[in-house]
Amino acid sequence: MESKKLLEADMSTPKYESMNGGLPDDDDELLDIATEIATETASTTSAGSNQPFLAWFRRKVDATGMSQDDISLQPFLNSCESSTNILDSSEETMLEFGQYDDFHTIDWVRDISRDRLRHKQISRKSKESCWDLIKGTHDAWSGWLCVLFVGMAAGLFAGIVDIGASWMSDLKEGICPEAFWLNKEQCCWGSNDTTFDDRSCSQWLTWSQLFGIHTENAGTYILDYIIYVLWALSFSMIAVFLVRTLAPYACGSGIPEIKTILSGFIIRGYLGKWTLIIKSVCMMLAVSAGLSLGKEGPLVHVACCIGNFFSYLFPKYGRNEAKKREILSAASAAGVSVAFGAPIGGVLFSLEEVSYYFPLKTMWRSFFCALVAAFILRSINPFGNSHLVKFYVEYNTPWFFFELLPFILLGVFGGLYGAFFNKFNLKWCRFRKKTRMGLFPIAEVMIVTFITALLAFPNPYTRENTSVLIQRLFKDCGPVDDSDLCDYNATYAPNLNNRRNPYGEAGTGVQNAMWQLFLALILKGILTIFTFGMKVPAGLFIPSMAVGAIAGRLIGTGVEQLAFNFPDWILFDEACAGGQRCVTPGLYAMVGAAAALGGVTRMTVSLVVIMFELTGGLQYIIPIMAAVMTSKWVGDAFGKEGIYDAHIHLNGYPFLDAKEEFKHTTIAADIMRPRRGDPPLVVIEQDNMTVEELETLLQEEDYNGFPVVVSKETQLLVGFVLRRDLSLALDEARKAQDGVVSNSRVYFTTHVPGPLDVGPKPLKLKKMLDQSPFTITDQTPMEVVIDMFRKLGLRQCLVTHKGRLLGIITKKDILRHIATLANQDPDSIQFL
Amino acid sequence: MESKKLLEADMSTPKYESMNGGLPDDDDELLDIATEIATETASTTSAGSNQPFLAWFRRKVDATGMSQDDISLQPFLNSCESSTNILDSSEETMLEFGQYDDFHTIDWVRDISRDRLRHKQISRKSKESCWDLIKGTHDAWSGWLCVLFVGMAAGLFAGIVDIGASWMSDLKEGICPEAFWLNKEQCCWGSNDTTFDDRSCSQWLTWSQLFGIHTENAGTYILDYIIYVLWALSFSMIAVFLVRTLAPYACGSGIPEIKTILSGFIIRGYLGKWTLIIKSVCMMLAVSAGLSLGKEGPLVHVACCIGNFFSYLFPKYGRNEAKKREILSAASAAGVSVAFGAPIGGVLFSLEEVSYYFPLKTMWRSFFCALVAAFILRSINPFGNSHLVKFYVEYNTPWFFFELLPFILLGVFGGLYGAFFNKFNLKWCRFRKKTRMGLFPIAEVMIVTFITALLAFPNPYTRENTSVLIQRLFKDCGPVDDSDLCDYNATYAPNLNNRRNPYGEAGTGVQNAMWQLFLALILKGILTIFTFGMKVPAGLFIPSMAVGAIAGRLIGTGVEQLAFNFPDWILFDEACAGGQRCVTPGLYAMVGAAAALGGVTRMTVSLVVIMFELTGGLQYIIPIMAAVMTSKWVGDAFGKEGIYDAHIHLNGYPFLDAKEEFKHTTIAADIMRPRRGDPPLVVIEQDNMTVEELETLLQEEDYNGFPVVVSKETQLLVGFVLRRDLSLALDEARKAQDGVVSNSRVYFTTHVPGPLDVGPKPLKLKKMLDQSPFTITDQTPMEVVIDMFRKLGLRQCLVTHKGRLLGIITKKDILRHIATLANQDPDSIQFL
Repeated sequence: MESKKLLEADMSTPKYESMNGGLPDDDDELLDIATEIATETASTTSAGSNQPFLAWFRRKVDATGMSQDDISLQPFLNSCESSTNILDSSEETMLEFGQYDDFHTIDWVRDISRDRLRHKQISRKSKESCWDLIKGTHDAWSGWLCVLFVGMAAGLFAGIVDIGASWMSDLKEGICPEAFWLNKEQCCWGSNDTTFDDRSCSQWLTWSQLFGIHTENAGTYILDYIIYVLWALSFSMIAVFLVRTLAPYACGSGIPEIKTILSGFIIRGYLGKWTLIIKSVCMMLAVSAGLSLGKEGPLVHVACCIGNFFSYLFPKYGRNEAKKREILSAASAAGVSVAFGAPIGGVLFSLEEVSYYFPLKTMWRSFFCALVAAFILRSINPFGNSHLVKFYVEYNTPWFFFELLPFILLGVFGGLYGAFFNKFNLKWCRFRKKTRMGLFPIAEVMIVTFITALLAFPNPYTRENTSVLIQRLFKDCGPVDDSDLCDYNATYAPNLNNRRNPYGEAGTGVQNAMWQLFLALILKGILTIFTFGMKVPAGLFIPSMAVGAIAGRLIGTGVEQLAFNFPDWILFDEACAGGQRCVTPGLYAMVGAAAALGGVTRMTVSLVVIMFELTGGLQYIIPIMAAVMTSKWVGDAFGKEGIYDAHIHLNGYPFLDAKEEFKHTTIAADIMRPRRGDPPLVVIEQDNMTVEELETLLQEEDYNGFPVVVSKETQLLVGFVLRRDLSLALDEARKAQDGVVSNSRVYFTTHVPGPLDVGPKPLKLKKMLDQSPFTITDQTPMEVVIDMFRKLGLRQCLVTHKGRLLGIITKKDILRHIATLANQDPDSIQFL
Repeated sequence: MESKKLLEADMSTPKYESMNGGLPDDDDELLDIATEIATETASTTSAGSNQPFLAWFRRKVDATGMSQDDISLQPFLNSCESSTNILDSSEETMLEFGQYDDFHTIDWVRDISRDRLRHKQISRKSKESCWDLIKGTHDAWSGWLCVLFVGMAAGLFAGIVDIGASWMSDLKEGICPEAFWLNKEQCCWGSNDTTFDDRSCSQWLTWSQLFGIHTENAGTYILDYIIYVLWALSFSMIAVFLVRTLAPYACGSGIPEIKTILSGFIIRGYLGKWTLIIKSVCMMLAVSAGLSLGKEGPLVHVACCIGNFFSYLFPKYGRNEAKKREILSAASAAGVSVAFGAPIGGVLFSLEEVSYYFPLKTMWRSFFCALVAAFILRSINPFGNSHLVKFYVEYNTPWFFFELLPFILLGVFGGLYGAFFNKFNLKWCRFRKKTRMGLFPIAEVMIVTFITALLAFPNPYTRENTSVLIQRLFKDCGPVDDSDLCDYNATYAPNLNNRRNPYGEAGTGVQNAMWQLFLALILKGILTIFTFGMKVPAGLFIPSMAVGAIAGRLIGTGVEQLAFNFPDWILFDEACAGGQRCVTPGLYAMVGAAAALGGVTRMTVSLVVIMFELTGGLQYIIPIMAAVMTSKWVGDAFGKEGIYDAHIHLNGYPFLDAKEEFKHTTIAADIMRPRRGDPPLVVIEQDNMTVEELETLLQEEDYNGFPVVVSKETQLLVGFVLRRDLSLALDEARKAQDGVVSNSRVYFTTHVPGPLDVGPKPLKLKKMLDQSPFTITDQTPMEVVIDMFRKLGLRQCLVTHKGRLLGIITKKDILRHIATLANQDPDSIQFL
């Protein structure tokens, strides 16, 4: 069949490579950006580098006619970093045929076609020999093999990070002299103290005790205080220094960038080996420094780095950006899975929040990956309990219907806190970006660490590790629990074998705890705003959950006391009658944590499932769901964006949100280039241009691709050709010296006028023509156009009117259009 | 803005309505089908109706020029039915503007555009008055309100069906004379017997006891036997009779049809009120008749009927087929949620198996719906335990690594069974369709019921309700359990307070049980093949799980005995050393159930999550996952299709699978119509045709839409116009008598040549032109075309070459093409 052959020939050349920056006014803009960049670089690195950079940039643009896409903007992409990622950027700069440049949008259609072709070749070949059959089988299984490795490595890394962070956190307070490598909990296990609680055991020495001071007085307190602050400062100093010098991409939570990458964008080095190592190390350091941040978001980034690493072992994934994202999608599921011990929640997180193009196809594999990761982590057992889950809790009492009221109240709190946090964190980040403050990241980290440590030490609930705090707040008071939080004026219940019944009027301990928790709430709530966005690995899950858990415990204890004192009040009537215990403050903490996290991130199903996996009890889903729903609605009333999407916008990543609905009535003609009044679209005629004309065209225009038409008069579309391919082909033809000269005609048709044509030898370029560019009419509603871009993963689309070519729409045009309609600065969309 | 106005004008007319059967050779084919249909009808209903039907059909085609799409093929669609759905089809036949005909594919793009327009109008209006604001708010919340109702109703229906089925099932064996409305379990609760086990309690009387015979001998056995069979026969008689006469769509599991409907297909009456009621009733009857079927699949159908019912309360959903599917998607999640008490599993089932177009958007709402349904069901508490879950189990022992081997073995069994079942069930269904057997559905049901009852009664494991059997097999042997399955030569363990330790050498009870279970395995395995596809509501989940659970229990007990007898064997070494109990046969049953169900349906994530929700223990996920993975791989080796997809193909539904990959190298030019040699595509010229010419065209051609071009010579595409709109507009213009005569020119352009044209008054039809039809080039690879159809929900797509219109591809063309490439009969794709 002729058509088959044609197709295969077509497939072997890359389809429309990089037609994205191709807009008439890009050249000016380009220089603007370059100048801006250069200025920024000058001020952030050394003053002397300004001129040479700009000169080099101009040279590049002027001499070779290359567009800005060919110049690495990498140093300036990441909001949290402005210096080059020395180690990771160099390791991947080798450009290959069919690969993308840094900071480019990938073309899903092309990549998936490439993979299909590859697959067909392999299955054809595998019938030939035994070795090819083995290779074919290996290829078929490589996806599963790859996610198996990813899952195992993710579990391993998470285990190491958990153990390291826990050890270093405790180091701030003291040490286990007999075995310094043990953390406080393990140290005390080693000793004969059977229960481990707030008080220190004999094996574990605080620093002042280590120095021989065994009395507790103001002096030892101050000494411990100073040592605590010093440890915190040194941890964060090392962290920020490592990030700055070795892997600038290792800062922040990484989730906004992962989302952007998975939506089809290239950030070279963002998932590199050095980022992986440095982020893992600095994550431990930053958590141990006592900063108001978590390691759960960064764990997702680390898992994706692992995914990226292993994908290179399998060329099927490593050499195909679209396929690689299948692995990354599974890796992000594994990241959440190990962060919370929640494999199902991880898969749903990957599905709901992170993945973009292929939610369903990879679900099964993602689930496998998440499960393997959770299993490995459980085998390492860093939490010291046999459960898979980080905050494992078990409640003995059910919840009652009247409690939905306080749960919804917690949802309102969560939504309000989320809106408040998002607003002020964004303001602060914007302030950091705009002012000179952004130039002193190390100083910023040190100051925030200092303030955090200073304020955190006096309060026992902020002094300890945040995840330990959350665990404590989630826990129900047991009969033998004698911590402050459970210090009730207890009754001795006969049904508990006369043991202390932890239910009654709040004792002084509980009252104290409430005050301290209230202060902790304010402290954490505010410090997190300044912490998220600093140049250290910083996750949001744990601090948000902590804020919510504190609020939940406060409200829960309040309701509990109310129910104890007025058990016959109509609201409590049935459930609490006769002084029965009917309120579990720990459950309120859990619901509050879910609500606050929901308010900040606007996660929905995945959040509920993660929280459900923590308890394992289906019955508590309903309270959590009620709170998360309320929190999302309240939060959405103040602005639809979750914190990750807000940071994506803040950084101007080219992310076309798949969930947002486009609500305007514009049509393709309103968006396409050229606009009315602009010069017409630059096109190539299929059989009427000489080599010289094309070379001039390539020099004069910096578009990344050109539509090919029958003739300029008819504007009937034939196909689309990429700058890179065209330029390569012309160069080669010149070099080959087989008769192609400046006024040789270039043909994009199958038939070339034969011997009748007495001119120089023609050049046939039909092979490199993409004969199936996506087209729409100028009357197509924009919502349909956006749907096409999202669902098919397009980079650009040609616009026709009555069959004739009229213009072009790129992903960047759409993003700018959306920004304009939302009254935002369209120039905030920087990359494509 | 001018473009805005244009767009809105465009939006207010329906876009390309029904351009699907528009193929040149359809006319012949059409008559073929009609003849075939008529013959079939004649033979199934009454012989006399043959001629009139054919005559009516011919009249319809000949006189009005309508295509077969306008003629209801409903009686012939459903494989399991060949008579008309009397009640439901009449209630919904009122045709409206913008609605679809029966057995048509919907146009997602158009419906979603319509909804956007509606939404814009409401939000504009809501600023005007307070009442409009309330209406606007109601509109915004109606989605949540609707799924709330759906969830509540689904929970209620499931509760009623569960209670009814359990009561009627027990009715076969006996009755509770003091309170006949109680089932056996409830009856025995009422009495003073504290434990409920195999033996009957004093309150519950078997039929022979009721007749005063209290000795157990051959006579009572035979009496009970006969009564059992009679009850079974009467139950199934009522069921099949109700289905045949009142709601023919109520048969089968309904999942293949639900999948097709959700993928965008109209089957009027399939989700109607009568189907809902009759299916609910017949589900109980069929289960109670002891047939080898379950009510879980039908529950999904019932939930979708409920979703359909409530969607009519909200015009936003009821009057927009695309939006309605959002509610149906949530409803199917609620269906699985109540079937198994697994809300998360339900959402994932809806996502993985059923939903098509909008997996993520509705996930949160589906989850809410599923949760509400589960909560209501739990409040009704039909299972009599306080758990949400049907087969709640709790195991005390963990699983050991060596057990992965038998688990994988179970996976292999599940895969093989699935392949075997699918193959023979399909063969049987095809046989039923082709031969005269299909004409006697009542007789078929009665015969199968008779055989089932006859063979099931002697074996205690087949006599009882299948879901009770599964529960029994899942359960671990407790110290007080004295059923046959737990009859070990017990040791009395000191750690159990000297109670019987149910672990040891298998006693005679266990040996007997194994034999009986083996027979039950064969019986159920074979009977299900003949049962699934009969004309009663019949689900597959429960019988498949039963087969797997029996196999699992058999293998589990085998491994247990092996471990007991050879505890020092290298494989058991660590786990079973010292005669420790290390094997839980109940867990094997659960793993086996998952494997068999996975083999039959090829579900993956949702299946694992459903099974996980049954136990609530994360630790058993890994065995289940291992078995399900193996079972899927083994099953896929014999054929990629799950049973639901196979039945979709068998019935020729127009379902374009979103998961299957298209692996051929064809291009659009190979598929499009007209084919080489055919007459050229019928087009309309934008300004060169008269009213008479168009009327002739409408009479001669039966396409459902026509491309409009600049001129026949240039073939430059202007837009697409629907037959229905065009015909309506011409009729109206004729009626209006404002100067439009037969040779009036028809213009699809904005500007009409003015007074210079001295002919009769022109007719302007630009308003009804869809100016943004989807187009592709003839060189586009078919995989890209299929992707577009799937992801954008297209019905047809125009094909161009160098800007000129060349042909058209419809969804039907694609399905036929796929069938041809898979060496199937392309004519099996019947509807569109």
